[in-house]
Amino acid sequence: MELKLALEKLNQLEKTNYALRHASSVLYVDGSTAAPKNSWRGRGEALGYLSALSYEAMVNPETGETLETILANRDQVSEKVYRQAEVLKEDYDDMHIIPMEEYVAYTQLLNESDAVWHEAKNNSDFASFAPVLEKLVAYHRRFATLKGKGEKAVYDVLLDTYEKGASMAALDPFFRTIREELTPLILEIAKKPQIGFDFQRHRWPVDQQRAFSEKIMALEGLDPANCTLGETEHPFTDGMNKWDVRITTHYHEEDASYSMYSVFHEGGHALYELGVADDLQFTSLAGGSTMGIHESQSRFYENLITRSRAFCAPLLKVMKACFPEQTEGLTEDALYAGINRSQPSLIRTEADELTYPLHVMIRYEIEKALIAGDLKVGELPGIWNDLYRKYLGLEVPDDRRGVLQDSHWSGGMFGYFPSYALGSAYGVQMLRQMEKDLDVWGAVAKGDLAPVTAWLGQKVHQYGKLKKPQELLQNAMGGPLDPKVYTGYLKEKYSALYGVKL
Amino acid sequence: MELKLALEKLNQLEKTNYALRHASSVLYVDGSTAAPKNSWRGRGEALGYLSALSYEAMVNPETGETLETILANRDQVSEKVYRQAEVLKEDYDDMHIIPMEEYVAYTQLLNESDAVWHEAKNNSDFASFAPVLEKLVAYHRRFATLKGKGEKAVYDVLLDTYEKGASMAALDPFFRTIREELTPLILEIAKKPQIGFDFQRHRWPVDQQRAFSEKIMALEGLDPANCTLGETEHPFTDGMNKWDVRITTHYHEEDASYSMYSVFHEGGHALYELGVADDLQFTSLAGGSTMGIHESQSRFYENLITRSRAFCAPLLKVMKACFPEQTEGLTEDALYAGINRSQPSLIRTEADELTYPLHVMIRYEIEKALIAGDLKVGELPGIWNDLYRKYLGLEVPDDRRGVLQDSHWSGGMFGYFPSYALGSAYGVQMLRQMEKDLDVWGAVAKGDLAPVTAWLGQKVHQYGKLKKPQELLQNAMGGPLDPKVYTGYLKEKYSALYGVKL
Repeated sequence: MELKLALEKLNQLEKTNYALRHASSVLYVDGSTAAPKNSWRGRGEALGYLSALSYEAMVNPETGETLETILANRDQVSEKVYRQAEVLKEDYDDMHIIPMEEYVAYTQLLNESDAVWHEAKNNSDFASFAPVLEKLVAYHRRFATLKGKGEKAVYDVLLDTYEKGASMAALDPFFRTIREELTPLILEIAKKPQIGFDFQRHRWPVDQQRAFSEKIMALEGLDPANCTLGETEHPFTDGMNKWDVRITTHYHEEDASYSMYSVFHEGGHALYELGVADDLQFTSLAGGSTMGIHESQSRFYENLITRSRAFCAPLLKVMKACFPEQTEGLTEDALYAGINRSQPSLIRTEADELTYPLHVMIRYEIEKALIAGDLKVGELPGIWNDLYRKYLGLEVPDDRRGVLQDSHWSGGMFGYFPSYALGSAYGVQMLRQMEKDLDVWGAVAKGDLAPVTAWLGQKVHQYGKLKKPQELLQNAMGGPLDPKVYTGYLKEKYSALYGVKL
Repeated sequence: MELKLALEKLNQLEKTNYALRHASSVLYVDGSTAAPKNSWRGRGEALGYLSALSYEAMVNPETGETLETILANRDQVSEKVYRQAEVLKEDYDDMHIIPMEEYVAYTQLLNESDAVWHEAKNNSDFASFAPVLEKLVAYHRRFATLKGKGEKAVYDVLLDTYEKGASMAALDPFFRTIREELTPLILEIAKKPQIGFDFQRHRWPVDQQRAFSEKIMALEGLDPANCTLGETEHPFTDGMNKWDVRITTHYHEEDASYSMYSVFHEGGHALYELGVADDLQFTSLAGGSTMGIHESQSRFYENLITRSRAFCAPLLKVMKACFPEQTEGLTEDALYAGINRSQPSLIRTEADELTYPLHVMIRYEIEKALIAGDLKVGELPGIWNDLYRKYLGLEVPDDRRGVLQDSHWSGGMFGYFPSYALGSAYGVQMLRQMEKDLDVWGAVAKGDLAPVTAWLGQKVHQYGKLKKPQELLQNAMGGPLDPKVYTGYLKEKYSALYGVKL
């Protein structure tokens, strides 16, 4: 194929892929936010059809030839075009493994499993979710086995999907360091009296929380003309392009901090999507890099910035405006301690910064065994409860607050969880670099997050998938991953908060 | 083509059409309810692509042969299959007229014009909407000219799109009857003091209205598992299938009756979509028949049922539960008079039942001239204001409350408006039949609309597009359209309300 023709075909393919991705994403977002419960069937019809088109657009000899022609002419094409072909080639190779019928059936299974999981979670009924979960596990084991060609462990293949280059060989010591470094501190803190403002001693009416969400989105720098907030069981972010990003939250009347930190977290993802360069939009390079890097941004805002002492000044001002009664007499110090209370808890998304990585580690251990075939789906509730007892000292009262709490498995995202811990660690290393370049805490204390977002924009956001993950990370972190920077940050912050000597 | 093959192809075509229609509808609903303002561009990319696929699926020799094969074998296929082919053939013929590029460009123009119109309406700036409107008018004039082949007036072609068989020859006398019968009564009422409860003397907080909407949807018989409510500038209904119908409303703090009657109106459309037989779902026969018949159902609930004296008992109960302060001391009689206040007003969707058809007549007269080419787009605000002065005695203060108020033209729906008046007239004739079969007002007074919906379901809803409009209407109305039944109903109701002798 002539290069000129290949470039035309590439543009056509990107347009097709964009349109299909856009439509599928909106169907998904709408399905989770606004669609009636029984809508899943019709949506399945539509998603099945769209996924068949996606498959047909990618898996055909012409697409293969197009991508290979471009990859063979590296010196004659721009960095952007080369990278487009590279990223698309990875998808092309992945999709080739599975026959179209199976791919379409899988898309429809995901749509169904989402509905089944919601119902199962509401009823705390793992048994009703198990058959669908078994199908999903079988699909991913089979898919990853084919993809790994026997050269790679099946779970390593899945890890690599979300975090390029991630493997059990690297993650085992990563989580060991986290466990060894943090467990003594967690045990010490457990002996101390609880600190700071207690959100759960007040009622937080949902309508007031909705108005509050608008204000804190503005504080985070999210422009409502490009980013809107919906309400779902499980908060998420979906970005169509930099002018259309959706985040969601979930309101709990008994604790406004849950939704507040969901908004800050998803808002971090959104800022990433909103910051990708204009000329990468509508291509396969738009949107974020790996999931770990994506989580580094969400957790950067959720923890490093909006749970910092400096941020308590602007945050308290907004809280007082929206919740005058609930915050009467509240000081910045009490707020700072209250938003950083550490305590072993049942729900990952509500966990404090210190115990959070143990939630991730538990899931990592379970997935390793599940995907290796050492653990049956039916055994999941038991092992889940065992590990929460072992690492967090908690009894899980029901599966709703246990093995059914996360939407990842119902979404087929096996291997995703470690991204949260990796992202947290990446974020701290980026913060250390940022502190060299600008007065982070001076700006944050004034409620001005623009310099923070500009720095991340320049180092991370703008590139989308243009740079390879390792290059992007190295550049933003100023060196390789070192979990001790992350655990060092947590130890310093939490020993000071609870007056623990280490 | 063998009939057996044609039947397979028909099923395939229906599946494809359904998926594309579903995706486009969700993109549209989401775009109007939840998507950020700047999302229109990405949505345009997706909608353009989907419309090209729709076009390709319909406009090709194979589809033509498929449909003709089935139509030529009427005695060998079911009524349903024959009618599917018949309905699809009409679309097929329409789509053939326009080249694909133009069809896709038109779809994208609609997406753009929706955004432009919203902005123009907010700013009361007709000039910014005019260029897009000119393109839309030109497109439809050209399209209808080609479709009419010189044998039919251009506006008649457009009318026929929404109401099979409608024509200026039939509508001119229809509107003349309405004008002649109702104008004397409207003038008499204008001399009388205003009656009943004044919604505008209270404040109706939006959060309370949202909770109220849930209750009145339940009262109307809308199951939230199949039908959800969104919020938009201009209320509408979109039905994907009978398990996924969306209605929208708009809340005004100063008048809860606006949203209340939007919900009842759109809820009537929704009940129609929700009542189509299971075996027509996911085919071109699902959804309602003509727009006039669709409006007959929405206006049936909005006016004949929920503005009836009998309905005031259950309605007042729900209002008192949701708005205890605002409704203190309110009686059923005062509510009945309040929800039926008649007064010439600027906004069609807020107009009372009596003056409403004059709003429609004004639009009909304007569209006739516009589509005939006797009126330029730039002259629209002037003629609009002239006709509101002439027929309703009102000065239009700005285009936001004048020519920019409706979303129909920005949606390319020229020829739609008469459906509202026709639907109102159909509805009264259906009610007269229903009264023979069941104790309508006994049930309504108890807040039990199930028998009403069951009757309409049996006579109208279940058939979707299976029966031809004229047959459906004849059957439900017990005879041909007679505008004097409609004007007779209005004269009786309103002369009693205002104590006017005719």
